[in-house]
Amino acid sequence: MNKAILRIECPDKQGIVHEITEFLVNNNGNILELEQFVDQRTARFFMRVVWDMTGFGIPLEKFDIAFAETANGLSAKYWINSSAKKDRLALFASKELHCLGETLMQSFLGNLPVEIPVIISNHETAGNLAEKFGVKFFHIPTDGREKEEYEKEQLRILEEQRIDFIGLARYMRILSANFVRRYHDRIINIHHSFLPAFVGANPYRQAYEKGVKIIGATAHFVTEELDQGAIIAQDITPAHHGYSVDRLRQVGQETEKKVFSFALKKYAKRKIIRIGNRTIVFE
Amino acid sequence: MNKAILRIECPDKQGIVHEITEFLVNNNGNILELEQFVDQRTARFFMRVVWDMTGFGIPLEKFDIAFAETANGLSAKYWINSSAKKDRLALFASKELHCLGETLMQSFLGNLPVEIPVIISNHETAGNLAEKFGVKFFHIPTDGREKEEYEKEQLRILEEQRIDFIGLARYMRILSANFVRRYHDRIINIHHSFLPAFVGANPYRQAYEKGVKIIGATAHFVTEELDQGAIIAQDITPAHHGYSVDRLRQVGQETEKKVFSFALKKYAKRKIIRIGNRTIVFE
Amino acid sequence: MNKAILRIECPDKQGIVHEITEFLVNNNGNILELEQFVDQRTARFFMRVVWDMTGFGIPLEKFDIAFAETANGLSAKYWINSSAKKDRLALFASKELHCLGETLMQSFLGNLPVEIPVIISNHETAGNLAEKFGVKFFHIPTDGREKEEYEKEQLRILEEQRIDFIGLARYMRILSANFVRRYHDRIINIHHSFLPAFVGANPYRQAYEKGVKIIGATAHFVTEELDQGAIIAQDITPAHHGYSVDRLRQVGQETEKKVFSFALKKYAKRKIIRIGNRTIVFE
Amino acid sequence: MNKAILRIECPDKQGIVHEITEFLVNNNGNILELEQFVDQRTARFFMRVVWDMTGFGIPLEKFDIAFAETANGLSAKYWINSSAKKDRLALFASKELHCLGETLMQSFLGNLPVEIPVIISNHETAGNLAEKFGVKFFHIPTDGREKEEYEKEQLRILEEQRIDFIGLARYMRILSANFVRRYHDRIINIHHSFLPAFVGANPYRQAYEKGVKIIGATAHFVTEELDQGAIIAQDITPAHHGYSVDRLRQVGQETEKKVFSFALKKYAKRKIIRIGNRTIVFE
Repeated sequence: MNKAILRIECPDKQGIVHEITEFLVNNNGNILELEQFVDQRTARFFMRVVWDMTGFGIPLEKFDIAFAETANGLSAKYWINSSAKKDRLALFASKELHCLGETLMQSFLGNLPVEIPVIISNHETAGNLAEKFGVKFFHIPTDGREKEEYEKEQLRILEEQRIDFIGLARYMRILSANFVRRYHDRIINIHHSFLPAFVGANPYRQAYEKGVKIIGATAHFVTEELDQGAIIAQDITPAHHGYSVDRLRQVGQETEKKVFSFALKKYAKRKIIRIGNRTIVFE
Repeated sequence: MNKAILRIECPDKQGIVHEITEFLVNNNGNILELEQFVDQRTARFFMRVVWDMTGFGIPLEKFDIAFAETANGLSAKYWINSSAKKDRLALFASKELHCLGETLMQSFLGNLPVEIPVIISNHETAGNLAEKFGVKFFHIPTDGREKEEYEKEQLRILEEQRIDFIGLARYMRILSANFVRRYHDRIINIHHSFLPAFVGANPYRQAYEKGVKIIGATAHFVTEELDQGAIIAQDITPAHHGYSVDRLRQVGQETEKKVFSFALKKYAKRKIIRIGNRTIVFE
Repeated sequence: MNKAILRIECPDKQGIVHEITEFLVNNNGNILELEQFVDQRTARFFMRVVWDMTGFGIPLEKFDIAFAETANGLSAKYWINSSAKKDRLALFASKELHCLGETLMQSFLGNLPVEIPVIISNHETAGNLAEKFGVKFFHIPTDGREKEEYEKEQLRILEEQRIDFIGLARYMRILSANFVRRYHDRIINIHHSFLPAFVGANPYRQAYEKGVKIIGATAHFVTEELDQGAIIAQDITPAHHGYSVDRLRQVGQETEKKVFSFALKKYAKRKIIRIGNRTIVFE
Repeated sequence: MNKAILRIECPDKQGIVHEITEFLVNNNGNILELEQFVDQRTARFFMRVVWDMTGFGIPLEKFDIAFAETANGLSAKYWINSSAKKDRLALFASKELHCLGETLMQSFLGNLPVEIPVIISNHETAGNLAEKFGVKFFHIPTDGREKEEYEKEQLRILEEQRIDFIGLARYMRILSANFVRRYHDRIINIHHSFLPAFVGANPYRQAYEKGVKIIGATAHFVTEELDQGAIIAQDITPAHHGYSVDRLRQVGQETEKKVFSFALKKYAKRKIIRIGNRTIVFE
C-alpha cells in the first residue's frame, strides 16, 4: 500500500487536529495512523498522520500547493513523504563492526526499509562485510591527514550516491562543523554509553572506573558539539560487578546495535521530530 | 483543572477524528490529549480524548443529549467522565498483604486518584493495615460457608459504600458468576504469574517446577472463567536458578504490586478500553 | 590463556568445595572462576570451576585417572573441557532467517567461540546467507518425505562434519526420538514465545488472540516432547495494543535472536548444567 | 536457622578458597552459600560464605581468635556477622515520602530484616507515616541553622538509639564530613537519577531538559563528596517524550523506591563489599 506520511509542527491552539483532518477528509484521505502531542513547555503542537494514497485527491508532488493555505493558517512547519520511496543510507564505520553488521543484516532480512549503497571507513576492516552484502566500500584513511581533505572525499561520495541520511556505526572520528551542516538532522550516531554520562572517549573504561551497575547506549543526532545532539533512543543492560572492561564492552555491544538499528528504523519510517535538543519519537 | 475524558468506540470509516473534533471545536473544547487506534482485525476505531472543561459549552450532565447526533451517526459506544470525580475503590485481600499495602501507600501519597473506603477479607490479617490507613475493614469468613451466603454480605457492603470498582489484592477466592456480572468490567485481579502460563493455584511452585528463567505478574479484568479475563498489564523479573520457591515468591511480589497498582491507575484515569478479550491501554 | 573448565554434580554434604579445591591446589591449579550452587530440593551440589592450565600438573587427557579418587569419593558426575578446543556447531534453519543471521554474524565478529561448518535447511532460502559466510549449505527437503529418510541424510552430514552441538535457528520440523537421543543434551531450540505459554505452532498469533502485554522467547534443550525440554534462557519485550500479528512477529524476532545467541554462548562456554527439567546457568 | 556470614578480602593467590573452607571443615561448618570473586584490576580476592551455626565448633564471639591465623596468613580483612542479630536502621526523610513509605511497608511485611526505631526529618511531613508504623519521629529543623548545631542533635539520637546504619530516604541535606566519618560505609542514599548523570539538585528537571529517553535511580554509599560514593544499585524506566517534569518525577519515584529498598536489603543481608569507589554485590 502506498502511504503518505505527514509530520507537522505549529504553535498550539484550539482546533488544529480538526483543521488538518478536514483537509484530509476533503481530499478523500483515509487516515491509517494519527499521533499528536502538545509540548507544554514550548506550547507547540506536533502531529504525525499517515493516510492511504489510494483514492487521495492530490498527488504528493502537488501537496505543497494544496496544503499551503492550511499550513499558513497554522503557521506550521511540515514534512511530507511517501512510503514508496526508500531512503539511501550511508554507513560510516571504524574497526568495531557489530553495529555495521547488525544494520546490514537487518536490511538484508527486510526489516529496515532503506537502501545501503555505500560504507565509508578509515580502516580496511569493514571491507569484508561490505563485500558479503554487496555494498560499495570506500577506505578513506584519516590518520595524519587534514580533516578538510578527507571529508572532501567523503562528501563527494555521499553526493555521488545521492545519500539521504548517514549512520555512524561506531565511526570514531568527530565530523567537522561544515560536514554536520551539510547533513543537518540527517546524521545518526551511536554512542556507547548512557548519555549524558561518559561523554567522549572510552566510555566503558569510564563506566568501569565509576563502578556503575548498568551500562547503556545512546543513539542521537549529530551536532557540532561532541555527543550533545538530540537523543533518539537509549537502552541499558545490567553490569555485574565481576565484569572486566572487556566484558562490559562485549555485553554493551548488544545494546548498542539494538539501539542503533531502532533509531535508524524510526528515522526511515519518519517517526522522529526534533524539538531543539529533544526528540519526539512516535510509536 | 477540571477535564472531561471521552472514550469512544465505533466501526472504522473515513473522517471519524474530524467529526469528533468538530463537535469539540464547535463547543469550544480545548483538546489536551488525543489518542486513537484502529483495530484492523475487527475494523473498529477507538479514541480517547481529553479536553479542558473551562469554557466548554456543555455541562457534562447534558453531554449525552448534545453528543447524541454525532454518536448515532458513527454508531458509537462511548464513556464520558469528569476528572473532578474520584472513583471509590474497594480492596479485597487475603493473607498476603504486599499488593494491599502498596495500593494503600500509593493512595496515601496521592499517586492513585481514588478513594478507598473499604477493605474486605476472609482473614483478619489485613485489619492492622486497614486501621493504619483509616479504612473500614470487614472480616467476612469464607471457610465452610456457602459462596452465595458470604458474597451477599460482601455485595451489601459494596452497595452501601457506593463502590465504583474493585481491586482483588491477592484475594484467593473465586467470585461467583453473579458477583462478576454485578461488577462487570469493574473488577481487577492480580495473578502472580505471566498468564496464560500457570493458571490457577500456586503459580510460583509451578514456575519453579518448570524451571522458567523469568517470573511474571498479570493484572486482568475478572470474568466468570478463572484467570481468563482481558489482560490489562504484565511485567516480569528474571529468576535465578538458585531461587527457591520462597525466593521466587518474594521476588515476584515486587512485580505483582507494581503491575497491580499500574492497572488500578490506568483504570482510575479512564485509560482502558476493553475489546472482547483484549484491552487498549492508552499512554 | 589455556583454561580447564570442570563442571561437577554430586550429592550435597559438608566439605565438597574443600575437597575439590584441595585436588586443584595439590596439582598447582590456579582457580580463575568458581561458582557453586546447592539445589535444596534434590540435595545435590553443583559447581563450575575454571583454572589456568599453565603450570597445572596434569594434562587434560589424564585428568580422568587423576581425578577418579576424588570423584568416586563424592559419587560425582563431571564434565571436563579445555577452552582451547572450539565446538563445531551445526545450524538448522527454515524460511525465517533472523536467528541464523544473528548466529553467523556473532561468530563472524568473534563473539561466539564456535566453528560453524554447516547449515541444514528444508528450504533453499538460507543458501544465500550460508554462502556469504562461507558455510557449507545442505538443502534437504522434508515435504512429502518420511522423517526417517530425510533425518538419515541430516545425521550423516552431522557425523561427517564431526558436529558437537546443534542450534535449531527457527527450524520448523519436529525431530524424531531417534535423532534427539543421538544428540541428547546437545540440541538447542529457540521457541518464539514465553514457554510454557503458547506451545506449538503460531505462538505470535496465539499471543495476539490472548491479548498479552508482553511477548517472549525461550531457548531450551530439545527433548522428545515438543517444546518441553529444560529451559536455558528467556527474555521478553513489551507488546503494544496497537501491534498486529506481523508487528508482534517483527518485534519478537529481536528477542528471539538475542535469547538464542545467549544460549549458544552459554553452551559453548560450558556454563550450563541440566538438572532434570531445569538448568543451572552460571554467570 | 542461625547462620554465620563471613565476608573476606585479601590479595589474590593460589589456594585461598581451599584455606578458608579448610578452616570451616575443621570446625564442622556446613557451607550454605559461597560466592567468590577476583578483581583482576587490583589482584584482590573477595568472598562471601555463609554456614550453619548449628554444630559449628566456635561461638561467634570467639571467631576472631580462632580465625586469626588463617586471616593473618592471607593478609585478609574480614567481617563476621550472625543472621540472628537484626540491624537497627535510622531513616532520614524530607518532604517526598515514597522511599520512606516503601521502606516502612517492606519492614512491616517482613521483607526487610531490620528494626527501624527512628525517623529524622527537617520537615514535619513524615510524622504521620512514622506514627502509623509506630516509629519514633524527630523533627529537627535545618533552615537558618548551623549544620554543626542540628547534626549534633541528629547524632545524639542515632547514638541513643544504637543505630547500625542509616538510609537517606530522599533527605535533601548534605551531611557534613564529620557526620559521614562517624557512620563511614554505613549511610546509604538514594539519588533520583542514573549517576554519574545529573549530579546535584533537580535531576528530573535536568533529565527533561536533556531529553533523555530513560530515567534512572542510584543507591550509593554516602561520602564527603556529593553523589560520588560507591554505587550499590541502579535501575531505570523508559521516559516517553510526552512526559512533563512532573510525570518524570512520578514515574521515577517507582524506580527510586525499588532501588533504595533493594540496597537496604543487600546491606542488611551483608551482601555488599566496597572496593574503593566500587561495590561487589553478591546474588
